[in-house]
Amino acid sequence: MKKHNFSAGPSILPQEVIKQAAAAVLNFNNSGLSLIEISHRSAPFVDVMDKARKLVLELMGLENKGYSAIFLQGGASLQFLMVPYNLLKVNGKATYLDTGTWASGAIKESKYVGTTEVLASSKDKGYNYIPKNFEIPTDADYFHCTSNNTIFGTQIKEFPVSPTLMVCDMSSDIFSRELDFSKFDLIYAGAQKNMGPAGTTLVVVKDEILGKSGRTIPSMLDYQIQIAKESMYNTPSVFAVYTSMLTLQWIKDMGGIAAIEKINNEKARILYAEIDSNPNFIGFAAKEDRSFMNVTFNLADESKKERFDSLWKAAGIEGLKGHRSVGGYRASIYNALPLESVQVLVDVMKQL
Amino acid sequence: MKKHNFSAGPSILPQEVIKQAAAAVLNFNNSGLSLIEISHRSAPFVDVMDKARKLVLELMGLENKGYSAIFLQGGASLQFLMVPYNLLKVNGKATYLDTGTWASGAIKESKYVGTTEVLASSKDKGYNYIPKNFEIPTDADYFHCTSNNTIFGTQIKEFPVSPTLMVCDMSSDIFSRELDFSKFDLIYAGAQKNMGPAGTTLVVVKDEILGKSGRTIPSMLDYQIQIAKESMYNTPSVFAVYTSMLTLQWIKDMGGIAAIEKINNEKARILYAEIDSNPNFIGFAAKEDRSFMNVTFNLADESKKERFDSLWKAAGIEGLKGHRSVGGYRASIYNALPLESVQVLVDVMKQL
Repeated sequence: MKKHNFSAGPSILPQEVIKQAAAAVLNFNNSGLSLIEISHRSAPFVDVMDKARKLVLELMGLENKGYSAIFLQGGASLQFLMVPYNLLKVNGKATYLDTGTWASGAIKESKYVGTTEVLASSKDKGYNYIPKNFEIPTDADYFHCTSNNTIFGTQIKEFPVSPTLMVCDMSSDIFSRELDFSKFDLIYAGAQKNMGPAGTTLVVVKDEILGKSGRTIPSMLDYQIQIAKESMYNTPSVFAVYTSMLTLQWIKDMGGIAAIEKINNEKARILYAEIDSNPNFIGFAAKEDRSFMNVTFNLADESKKERFDSLWKAAGIEGLKGHRSVGGYRASIYNALPLESVQVLVDVMKQL
Repeated sequence: MKKHNFSAGPSILPQEVIKQAAAAVLNFNNSGLSLIEISHRSAPFVDVMDKARKLVLELMGLENKGYSAIFLQGGASLQFLMVPYNLLKVNGKATYLDTGTWASGAIKESKYVGTTEVLASSKDKGYNYIPKNFEIPTDADYFHCTSNNTIFGTQIKEFPVSPTLMVCDMSSDIFSRELDFSKFDLIYAGAQKNMGPAGTTLVVVKDEILGKSGRTIPSMLDYQIQIAKESMYNTPSVFAVYTSMLTLQWIKDMGGIAAIEKINNEKARILYAEIDSNPNFIGFAAKEDRSFMNVTFNLADESKKERFDSLWKAAGIEGLKGHRSVGGYRASIYNALPLESVQVLVDVMKQL
């Protein structure tokens, strides 16, 4: 039976990417050797890394605009630490928007490095909305936000205008919608949603903002070193970078972010329409802040849980269980999830 | 033509591991889903992680001896920072043995954290030997050494008796020889030599030594957090951990470290015998410190380079070029390299 993979991350990747990745593990570029047993400094892999970095800037419209793209390790969680290490000045101040678990994680690490101010939080309502109407102080070193909150299913639709550096964790909605990426000074994203397998993290940063913190930064945490070494300061996560490159190429071949966004909008539209029209379901997130990547909802009547669970499982649906901190259901409808899979879920919801 | 892969890392892995890894990328555990598109918190992947951690302790004879095994990201290079963060006490002192590029890298990061003393160095002779007869001060927080120096082809044959904590970077010879691993308090290794693909790093640590530094440690750099979360504090490098688990199982199936060591000894014996008996070649490392993983040598007569290079390339040999900082040749003969491949190289050397 065909599977419909709604996992929140690691999550569905394009079928052709999975096939190409598996083929490269057996025989990379017809070399007779596996992708995972060659030197990362060999010309064929350096080409992969260069291509991945170039595709990122191309898809974001950031080529020749003073940005670097690098592939690191450690997930977004290590970026929670690297961002303040590199951008929070000695005696300076970092500002954060608290929209959920990952934002809170970023705030925690920043506090380890220096003065950290939370400008607004939606914790009061279980993170089911995005705070608005807060002011970003002009004397802050940077403002940090999380564009999409995987666990709660909220997403920033309009980013605040920042008088200081703008830093964004886009782990769970990168490459899913058109944005003016040049309004951001630093963007980071763990690969394992829209970009590739777990094991690599993308950082896109405006070169001119670096080297100004007044701190001595350990080598592995220093963006300038990682940029100077072109993501090869030490051995990169070869398989994850290669598979990310394939996914980036797939996005480009599909017509780029604009084309993907159209499909994403349609997927979100039909799923939220069902939630709103079907009395069996209640959406979790505030309507105006609903994520187009992670659709969170609950049953109106918990006694129907067993029946609903057996219905979607019978339809080949996987990964629909909500995060343990929220409960209910979460349908993650990332770039690679076909519209057809959303239709299967909607049909199941109608059957309840 | 069959390839003989002497790459220094990422490097050769067992053929059956490569086949199983590729198969899992297509369809993991007959789930109909790829290994790289399922949740790392799903039962089948949690099993993989648990099995990998258990196999490590089992192969090292460290089960039920108060050690934890964890799989992290960032390579040995991030361990260069994590070790002092976790073990170097506030106002304490770390001690290091400088045996080459990677040891120097570790020393550099430790200096960032606190007082760091280099007890001995072989830099005076281009790192072609292992310093001996140095004393480890009893008031040091720990002593750090690098068991095998990939670039220079030297290896510690007898570890010093340490009056303080013993920390070892075993990136390039882990699981290659029997050692009394219980003499070490912390061992770390990037996966990409004897254990798996690039993208994950193994840390084996005695639990009781942690939490005593007096420092506040950022979450991602704190071994105690990573142990408590069983290597799942954040999304691990799924593919690299899975493939490492397969390789660890392969080592066990081969008869464990003792059985592998016998083959490794034979491979090193015939290759060094050829270097010593063939007037065309000169070994780089001091004889008593020769690595059984990375065999470094030069031509006696540089004018024979072109002929030698075409001979080994014609034989299907890959990755024989020495590191840029040493020159000459380096034959990396890790666990997965068959004896047959070493024989092919020796035959080529005889032809020169």
